[in-house]
Amino acid sequence: MRLATVDTANGTRTARIENDYVVLLDAPDLSSLLNEPDWEERARSDAHQRVSRDRVRIARLLSGHPKIICVGLNYRGHITEIGLPTPDHPALFGKFPEALLGPADDLALPTISQQVDWEAELAVVIGSTARHADAQAAADAIAGFTVANDVSMRDLQNRTTQWLQGKTFEATTPIGPVLVTPDELPGGVTPDLRISCMVGGETVQDARTSDLLFSPVDLVAYVSRILTLNPADVILTGTPAGVGTALEPPRFLSAGELLVTEIEHIGRLENRIVA
Amino acid sequence: MRLATVDTANGTRTARIENDYVVLLDAPDLSSLLNEPDWEERARSDAHQRVSRDRVRIARLLSGHPKIICVGLNYRGHITEIGLPTPDHPALFGKFPEALLGPADDLALPTISQQVDWEAELAVVIGSTARHADAQAAADAIAGFTVANDVSMRDLQNRTTQWLQGKTFEATTPIGPVLVTPDELPGGVTPDLRISCMVGGETVQDARTSDLLFSPVDLVAYVSRILTLNPADVILTGTPAGVGTALEPPRFLSAGELLVTEIEHIGRLENRIVA
Repeated sequence: MRLATVDTANGTRTARIENDYVVLLDAPDLSSLLNEPDWEERARSDAHQRVSRDRVRIARLLSGHPKIICVGLNYRGHITEIGLPTPDHPALFGKFPEALLGPADDLALPTISQQVDWEAELAVVIGSTARHADAQAAADAIAGFTVANDVSMRDLQNRTTQWLQGKTFEATTPIGPVLVTPDELPGGVTPDLRISCMVGGETVQDARTSDLLFSPVDLVAYVSRILTLNPADVILTGTPAGVGTALEPPRFLSAGELLVTEIEHIGRLENRIVA
Repeated sequence: MRLATVDTANGTRTARIENDYVVLLDAPDLSSLLNEPDWEERARSDAHQRVSRDRVRIARLLSGHPKIICVGLNYRGHITEIGLPTPDHPALFGKFPEALLGPADDLALPTISQQVDWEAELAVVIGSTARHADAQAAADAIAGFTVANDVSMRDLQNRTTQWLQGKTFEATTPIGPVLVTPDELPGGVTPDLRISCMVGGETVQDARTSDLLFSPVDLVAYVSRILTLNPADVILTGTPAGVGTALEPPRFLSAGELLVTEIEHIGRLENRIVA
């Protein structure tokens, strides 16, 4: 099942996206839907209005106040590449909802940063409350997956030891376009999917989500030992090798470039970089 | 003006706390009040129900989904003491609302941590939207101040370079008991107040908020260049010297101890540590 938040003439609605049509569900946004205990059953039902795909525009997937928990270094290939030891625990940091951006929105370069970098990431969306979850409970708490780009202002990220200020810039983290439930993905809750990022037409990141050191299930279980995960909370699982700051010479996003972030079987974000 | 969220027979209400009585305002909690543009005028009005102080119990100050932005090393004395150079920028990290705890609630030690430490902090509560604020706009955006203890699980905080997992434990950050507007405080938006922490009857932290390197106004202006601050968002401004991990030998919170966090002219948090 593929779910999105869509703009309609009467405001936003949650929608189930089918090949040829869209089913408008009785929830104004995905967060509202996921907060209903029977959301999956409701979303699969066909007792809803059906419209053609060209009647709706896909909006930002998540609204409201989701917790956004991000993971640092988490792709084995990337860890090996830069010669670091394998970490025993995921490095977690936060991001605030103001940072989120729609899947086709322009991404405005902040004037305060000269080093705006890309980080294609698989994002886990929570579908039910998780606290002290074991592996099975963690798997059950996963509503599905979407695509995100943890766009990072490296100069601000490296001003201090704590990365937050380079990670939570207003309207710079594109997410979406759809939530895909695990049953539709190879590997299910441990998906094995190609993840890639293209900048100005050039592929800069290209990896597989099966290379994650801490899997989505691991991360949900780990975070749930710290605090409660609620429906519509999100975990950004980390980015593979190929970020701009690691290139020789370093490369950052420039106005006019198109930032494309894609995960196969889920979808792609296309964000134009603007001044 | 001193504002609190109080429990009444009909649920929580925002209240103005006077010496001999409490004025119940037309808002279920402080966050709702602060999101009204004329909140200060409304709160100062006497056209509300008045009850005696013993009729109400002070509840957790902030509910809903405030952004909680925390600052690392920010007391000059503490920076000098540990021999670090004066930082050019504040170190910012996040905390999620699940971490918050009421001013008199028990603080349950997480089983996952053996190093639960204290950090008395002055907290800035935002009263109006701030984005790209200069010093005057930042000062105007401050609703007032409250007391917080950024209780930190040092073992988890130091598992990776990013502190979040040691800082956002469920129900471990007491905050409150009241919001005090700047006009009531010596120094106004740059308050000069004694801040202290007592553990098991012993004073472990004792400093003045005037020793802050980055002042509340500096911090609001700085953060507002990164993202929008909204009413009821909170900035925890950092802790002075005297945390348990820096003692020889290190000392951490134990079940049975009373954790008292106090800022003069604002109030005190009294949280019993329980297993």
